[in-house]
Amino acid sequence: MTDTVHPLTLDRTDVEAARARIHDIVRRTPTLELHGAELGVTGRVVLKLELLQHTGSFKARGALNSVLQADASSGGVAAVSGGNHAAAVAWAAERAGIDADVFVPATATPEKLERIGGYGGRAHVVDGGVPDAFAAGLAWTAEHGVPLIHPFEQEGTISGQGTLGLELEEQVPDAHTVAVACGGGGLYSGVRTALGSHVRVVPVEPERCADLHAALAAGHPVPVEVGGVGADSLGPSEIGATAFDLARADVVDVPLVSDDDILAARRWLWQRCRVLAEPGGCVALAALMSGALTVEPGSTVVTVVSGGNNATLPR
Amino acid sequence: MTDTVHPLTLDRTDVEAARARIHDIVRRTPTLELHGAELGVTGRVVLKLELLQHTGSFKARGALNSVLQADASSGGVAAVSGGNHAAAVAWAAERAGIDADVFVPATATPEKLERIGGYGGRAHVVDGGVPDAFAAGLAWTAEHGVPLIHPFEQEGTISGQGTLGLELEEQVPDAHTVAVACGGGGLYSGVRTALGSHVRVVPVEPERCADLHAALAAGHPVPVEVGGVGADSLGPSEIGATAFDLARADVVDVPLVSDDDILAARRWLWQRCRVLAEPGGCVALAALMSGALTVEPGSTVVTVVSGGNNATLPR
Repeated sequence: MTDTVHPLTLDRTDVEAARARIHDIVRRTPTLELHGAELGVTGRVVLKLELLQHTGSFKARGALNSVLQADASSGGVAAVSGGNHAAAVAWAAERAGIDADVFVPATATPEKLERIGGYGGRAHVVDGGVPDAFAAGLAWTAEHGVPLIHPFEQEGTISGQGTLGLELEEQVPDAHTVAVACGGGGLYSGVRTALGSHVRVVPVEPERCADLHAALAAGHPVPVEVGGVGADSLGPSEIGATAFDLARADVVDVPLVSDDDILAARRWLWQRCRVLAEPGGCVALAALMSGALTVEPGSTVVTVVSGGNNATLPR
Repeated sequence: MTDTVHPLTLDRTDVEAARARIHDIVRRTPTLELHGAELGVTGRVVLKLELLQHTGSFKARGALNSVLQADASSGGVAAVSGGNHAAAVAWAAERAGIDADVFVPATATPEKLERIGGYGGRAHVVDGGVPDAFAAGLAWTAEHGVPLIHPFEQEGTISGQGTLGLELEEQVPDAHTVAVACGGGGLYSGVRTALGSHVRVVPVEPERCADLHAALAAGHPVPVEVGGVGADSLGPSEIGATAFDLARADVVDVPLVSDDDILAARRWLWQRCRVLAEPGGCVALAALMSGALTVEPGSTVVTVVSGGNNATLPR
């Protein structure tokens, strides 16, 4: 689905340029500090509440950054997404005064489809999964001559997502570990690029959407079967080359979480914090709560709550 | 239901003492800055996300402060409440290692009873309304020699709620206006006491829970009929003497909001911020959105989103 051979080369200056481009439009999302004891951890736990971002997920950052860099002469952009990126591109295009045609698989939640339309985007629902939606999106861009805003493997997208890392640096300057959910790897790549190696940036995957895990085991990105409660937001079948390259260079051990772990974290967030996140947005916290992510006693760990576009209440 | 003749006398040092008592247990709830244009306001709008507090509302502050000051030798505390204060007292008592007996009217929802039990409190469901629950609670305290933690007209409660104001002073030092929902007036009294007259602190009421409005018109607290979507959290039939006294001294014009205004604000918070608040928690924002609360162009206004214990999703 993507060119897995050549990772993109970005550095912190790209992320800083993205921030200059988007910072007066995106929200600086707040952090909530918890006592580690609430979660069975000895240390300080900080939630980065990125679900409060415009469009309900971090995707607004990368989408806006890419849209503002796109060739406006075409009058529009296209995108392919399980939902959150599509809504974000629709929102960004509306802000930029151009059209957005977004291609989503039939697994997209009703909330996500409603969001796309609510921001003036045209949602094209494609039978099948994300690869089918990609094929349809690529056909559209070829026919209409508009740029495709990639959900993760694109410089503008990654550097936009990285602006979350720059915020965290200011909000939690003593963070030792920052854990983020990993689907295609855009958020991980961006935050890792922003923060460099001064902070341990950990990509976390659902067991059933483990494309990075599989790639690290194989030595290169490979397609995997995806499913489970996180698939609507973390369901690319193959990790982006950039995320793979960064994770391999870091010799990162990727924590895996089960669907039960994810739903337990989601329930905890709702019952104890009145934060209603989507399952994929709870993956980093799930890793901490389940013990899949280990942290040094007394250290400060940030878990990014990355999306909130699922309106079912936890049981 | 309360002694309306003698307002309590508190000052900022009481609030500072409360903060010293509770600050390592309560959460420092985050703020979210919005562009005023999103809400049709020229200026800066900051949401204080107090629904993320322990127990889902600001009530945890005052309850913990009161419980920590209560005579521990009795081994317990009692409270009367329609829900949020009861859950907060149960939580605070659990933290302090003492019993909590809370008296709730038969109208209390199973969800609120579950929340009380979840924090280890004993809920006594009393036939009738809040006045009947109060009678039962007072009888219990007389029989068992435990203190009653009043939901608003008590020094410990008010100074605890005021700690929210001290946080805001640090988080939004340039705030010109701070708007809070007003039921019995504990939050308003506390924040007003914390911030003094340097900041305009505005109590906002639902049209159908307008006990402060009625008191200001009558020249003294008077019982009113309450109802509507905010009644479960803002439904005392008579304003506390302290809040009345403060509001009268400030010559405050109390903005009133309709049920439709409240539900529109609640829907906006969910759709545009992924914040799921209870209706009573949206009252201050509703005043800003409806125009009932007027602000100087270009000024900074804070609206406190004060509670999140209503799990129905907005339509």
